[in-house]
This record gives sequence, structure tokens and C-alpha cells, in this order.
Amino acid sequence: MTATLANDSFLRACLREPTGHTPIWLMRQAGRYLPEYRATRAKAGSFMGLATNPDFATEVTLQPLERYPLDAAILFSDILTVPDAMGLGLSFALGEGPRFAHPVRDEAAVATLEVPDMARLRYVFDAVASIRKALAGRVPLIGFSGSPWTLACYMVEGAGSDDYRLVKTMLYRRPDLMHRILEINADAVAAYLNAQVDAGAQALMIFDSWGGVLADGAFQAFSLAYTQRVLRQLKRDSEGRRVPHIVFTKGGGMWLDEIAAGGADVIGLDWTVNLGAARARVGASVALQGNLDPNVLFAAPEQVAAEAVGVLESFGRPSAGSGHIFNLGHGISQHTPPESVDALVHAVHEHSRRMRE
Amino acid sequence: MTATLANDSFLRACLREPTGHTPIWLMRQAGRYLPEYRATRAKAGSFMGLATNPDFATEVTLQPLERYPLDAAILFSDILTVPDAMGLGLSFALGEGPRFAHPVRDEAAVATLEVPDMARLRYVFDAVASIRKALAGRVPLIGFSGSPWTLACYMVEGAGSDDYRLVKTMLYRRPDLMHRILEINADAVAAYLNAQVDAGAQALMIFDSWGGVLADGAFQAFSLAYTQRVLRQLKRDSEGRRVPHIVFTKGGGMWLDEIAAGGADVIGLDWTVNLGAARARVGASVALQGNLDPNVLFAAPEQVAAEAVGVLESFGRPSAGSGHIFNLGHGISQHTPPESVDALVHAVHEHSRRMRE
Repeated sequence: MTATLANDSFLRACLREPTGHTPIWLMRQAGRYLPEYRATRAKAGSFMGLATNPDFATEVTLQPLERYPLDAAILFSDILTVPDAMGLGLSFALGEGPRFAHPVRDEAAVATLEVPDMARLRYVFDAVASIRKALAGRVPLIGFSGSPWTLACYMVEGAGSDDYRLVKTMLYRRPDLMHRILEINADAVAAYLNAQVDAGAQALMIFDSWGGVLADGAFQAFSLAYTQRVLRQLKRDSEGRRVPHIVFTKGGGMWLDEIAAGGADVIGLDWTVNLGAARARVGASVALQGNLDPNVLFAAPEQVAAEAVGVLESFGRPSAGSGHIFNLGHGISQHTPPESVDALVHAVHEHSRRMRE
Repeated sequence: MTATLANDSFLRACLREPTGHTPIWLMRQAGRYLPEYRATRAKAGSFMGLATNPDFATEVTLQPLERYPLDAAILFSDILTVPDAMGLGLSFALGEGPRFAHPVRDEAAVATLEVPDMARLRYVFDAVASIRKALAGRVPLIGFSGSPWTLACYMVEGAGSDDYRLVKTMLYRRPDLMHRILEINADAVAAYLNAQVDAGAQALMIFDSWGGVLADGAFQAFSLAYTQRVLRQLKRDSEGRRVPHIVFTKGGGMWLDEIAAGGADVIGLDWTVNLGAARARVGASVALQGNLDPNVLFAAPEQVAAEAVGVLESFGRPSAGSGHIFNLGHGISQHTPPESVDALVHAVHEHSRRMRE
């Protein structure tokens, strides 16, 4: 394995080093909007069949890179593999979100939780190693996990939720139990991400998908504090190179300053945030990743390109010490026309090169 | 009808005038968490049967006031009555959200839209008059509507949505059609709210429940601009007294300054916003309403009281020229134990009196 990369623009932008263009990758870029993904998933039989087989995971991770000149690959996996390894029984019914067979809802269930043996997640590390080999230095590979709080949401609710009633009831009624879950989650996530680095991941991203549902005050105590507990334990370097740490709190724009002070190299932003304002506030200390609304991809190609230019111009001309990685503000929709992604990637590359002239 | 009120603390706080305590009311305070509400709804047969019958609407509006010393009443109705009057066919299946039989999804459907004859909404104005009579000056009555953008979300999607794909596709692909819908909605909402004032409403609230799903830039152009178009047309006084205008954009904390500059007297805030920081930014020009997470009400009564005190202390000691109305950051959950509301209302009244000593 070598640290030589044909295209290291993503890693450089994460560290606020100069790049010739604004690098772009898309959350959930290996996904259902691609017919070749659907074909592989059909072969695998299920989402978990896909995620737990390193050959299939490698195949789908590389699919979007064959179509589009994306600047990074992201491990094909799920944010909930860690609680699955804790024995909660993760499954995905077709057309529905994730579901746990054994949710954690009372003191007895919390008492049995522990940091899982990382050997149970070997399929993930095998996939990382396999993908790195298949990438052959084209672009860097991003490893990831859900944040301690986001994992806790699913672990307590047992599935997605629209009001987070069960997990917030525990938070307000039994904060001791919630802190215990979050401590275990944080240490498990840190071990998991470090093992991904050992297997070949060149950047790490923590998805705090549900941090934004918390109240001011509760967010800091129950989400951010445990994301920081993860960050403090993460490896900083691998293969002689810095491993950038990315934190994305969906709906976290209100807390941008606090998140940016938490120790990550890159802060992911959703589309509600004004990129220029965010850059003015924290752009000297962290790179910013985002933030196109995925629904823009349902417009015509020339409209997609115009909105992409709007995001680039909102961040402004890259300068020494600032960094922007173009992304969506959420995972790409399964209904997205693949040709929209083509229009997007080309517009970002072309316009961001012009902005540097 | 007379403008004399036994308790006008809510109206005074809206206008940033001194009050002896912090007034409190709760979004959806007349609702399914109350057994007496469920009994009336069973008599009415359906949600729309309840909302369209002024006697039933009066009965349920007053129910929470019989239990709790709340400082305001809010008309029992739905945010979607205006598009129903446009002919879209509103219904509520039990256990589900609202649904329109005739969603607006193409140019032909948009072309037929117009501001409805307010006579079709007479059941609402009759309810307002009946409730005012029944209140007999105890507390003021709030009238309301959905915002132009929030109505458009439901009109295009035809129901609730978790990705707003259809309405945002129209927004990005056919902004001309979206602006046309929003113009009609704004003028209809203004006429509707003014007719509520004529019938006896003493304050008006615009629920921009889905403003927060828009991208920065799109929010200003497609939500805020049309909320302002409503505000510019609203009556300012009735019965010799100012009628406060409240705007609540759920998820709009990022845009607080722009919303506060839009002409409303009161800005509603959800629980993600730090009340003290919001007061420092805009509290000299608008009153603030909010912002307890409704899930706090699943904790024990003493925990509910402690969280309520936290919200009051976050706003800080009321002073001349500032105003705070206590509320939740979203409608109360149907699963809320009624005794939690008791603990909440008493904690807010008692602690806020102590803060003024």
C-alpha cells in the first residue's frame, strides 16, 4: 500500500491547502440512483448482504467513480454497523429505513451494552482494504461511522422516528442511562474508525445525522461532547500523511462555532447554512464541506449547473488557509437522474478552476 | 364585544410591554393529549367535522383553559383551511396527517388556482366569534394560518413529505409556477387572517412550519418574501387595540435576523435556538415566543419544571422593551401526560414572577 495519490485534491482541501479546483464527492454517491448499484444489490439479495461482502462493497464503492470524475471515494457501508456488532440486530426492509430487532430502552438493556469486539466488524475492514486496492491511488478513500448520539437515536427508537420521543424521553427522564449509552458508543466508534484507518481509510467522517433534533444545551451535552470524545481518540496520521476528520451535524448550523471548535478538520454543512457567512465565522480554522440541496438535482442540467455555481460563489474564491469540499447537504436521493450528477460534477470542476484564475 | 380583558399579559408581552409574569400558551394546546378533546372529537366523527362546526370548535378551544391557567386561547382549526377552500379537498385519515385529493402539480393546475371566496371559510369566522363570546374576556384569542410556502408544500406534495421532492422539484425547475402559487397563497392568507380579526381574533400567527427545509437563498425568495407579503396586508388594530403578528418558522434559527426584520411583532423559535443569544440579536425590536422541546413533557414533573426554568433563565430577566411568551418549539405531542402541562404552566408562572422581584 502506498500513500501516492493521482488526485489528492480532497485531502488537500480538507487541510486547507491549495488545490487547482474544488474537490467534489456526494454523500451516498454509491446508491440506488445508479442502475448498476441496483443490479449489484439484486445479486447480493439485501442491503446487509451487500455491505457485509467485501467484493460487493468494493464493486458498488467504485461504481460512481467509473461514471463521474469524483475526487473521493467513500466506503460503502451503513452508519449503524457498530450497534449491530453490539448485538442489536440490524436489518433493512425493502423501501424502509434501518430497524433494530433489540432496541435499548431500559436500565437492564443499557447494563448489558459494551464496546463490541472489533473482530465482529472485520467485514468492514476487509472492505476498506479491498476498496483501497481497487482504487489503486486514483482518489482517497473516506471511512465513516454514525456519531454516538445518532447511533443512540436508532438504538433507543429501534428505527427512524419523526419525533424522537423514546430517545428524548430517556434523555430527559434518565440522563444517567443516556450518558452511559453515549460513553460506550463514543469509545466503540473511536475504535471502529481507527481500525478503518489501519485497514486503509485516508479520511474519517462522523455523521451526526440527528444532532439537529436536540435542543440548545442538550445538543452540546448529549451530541457534541461525545463527538469530541471520539475525535480525541482518533489517529491523526497514517501512511505518513494526515488523516482529516470530518464532522457533519445535519441541522447544526446554529451551533457552527461550537462544532468548529471541537477539534475536527472539516465541518459538513447542510443547505440551510450560508457558506460565505460560515466561512467568515470559522473558515480560518476548519475547512467546510457542502452544501447543495439534493433536490436541486431534479432540475434541468443547466439549472443544476447554475445552482452549483451559486454554492461555489457563496463560499467565494478559495484563498490560502481556507478549504471547501463540494458536497450535497444530505445523501443523494434514490430518484435522482444520473445525468444530473454529471452536470453537477462538471460544473463544480469547471467553475472552480475559473474562480482560481 | 368588548376589548376589556381580565388577563392581557399575552398581548402586552407580544408588544414588549411590562407584565407581572411570563405568559404561556402551547401550540396545539387543544388536542389529542386531553381525554375531553378525544371525547368531543368522537362526537364530531372526524377532525374536519370538529373544525367546521363552530360549537365543537368552541368547546375544544376552551378545554385546556378549564384545566390550566393558560394566558391565551388559540382558535381550533387547521393550517390548511385556505387550500381546502381553493377546492383541493382536505381530509385527515385517522392516525395520519392531512391529505389533499387534488394536489397542484402542473401548469394547468396552477392556472386554475385563485384566492378563494372567503364565504367558503365562514365556518372559521363563525368559530372565532363563538369562541370570543365563550371566552368572555378571560384571555385573548389568537387566529392563525399556514404560511404561503407551508401551504404550497402540502398543495404540491398532496400530503406530508420527508424530502419535499415534488415541491422542490417545481421550485428549482419551474420557479415561475412556484411564485404564482405563492402570490395567490399570500393574498388568500392575508384576506383570511383579516377576516379572522373582523370576527374577533386579537392576535395573528403565521405558521411557517416548513420554511426550515429550504436552502439559504431559497428560504428568503420562496418563504420569507411571501410571509412579508402577508404581513404588509394585515390589519394592525382592532377594537381600539393593536393586533400583534407572530411569525414562526420552524428550523429558521439560521435566519433569525432576516425574519425579525420582516415586520412581525413576535418571532416564534424552536428549541434549537438559544433564547438568550436570540434576545441579544433581535430582542429590542421583536418579542420572542418559545421554545421548550415538547419531549421534555415526557419527563417527571420536577424535571419538567427544571427545564422550564432553564428556558426562562436563558431568555433572562424581562426588562423594559423586551418580551417573552413561553411556548413549546412545536405542537404538543398527543402522547403527553396532561399532568406534565400542569407542572409546566405553574413553573413558568411562579418562576417568572420570582424573576421580576
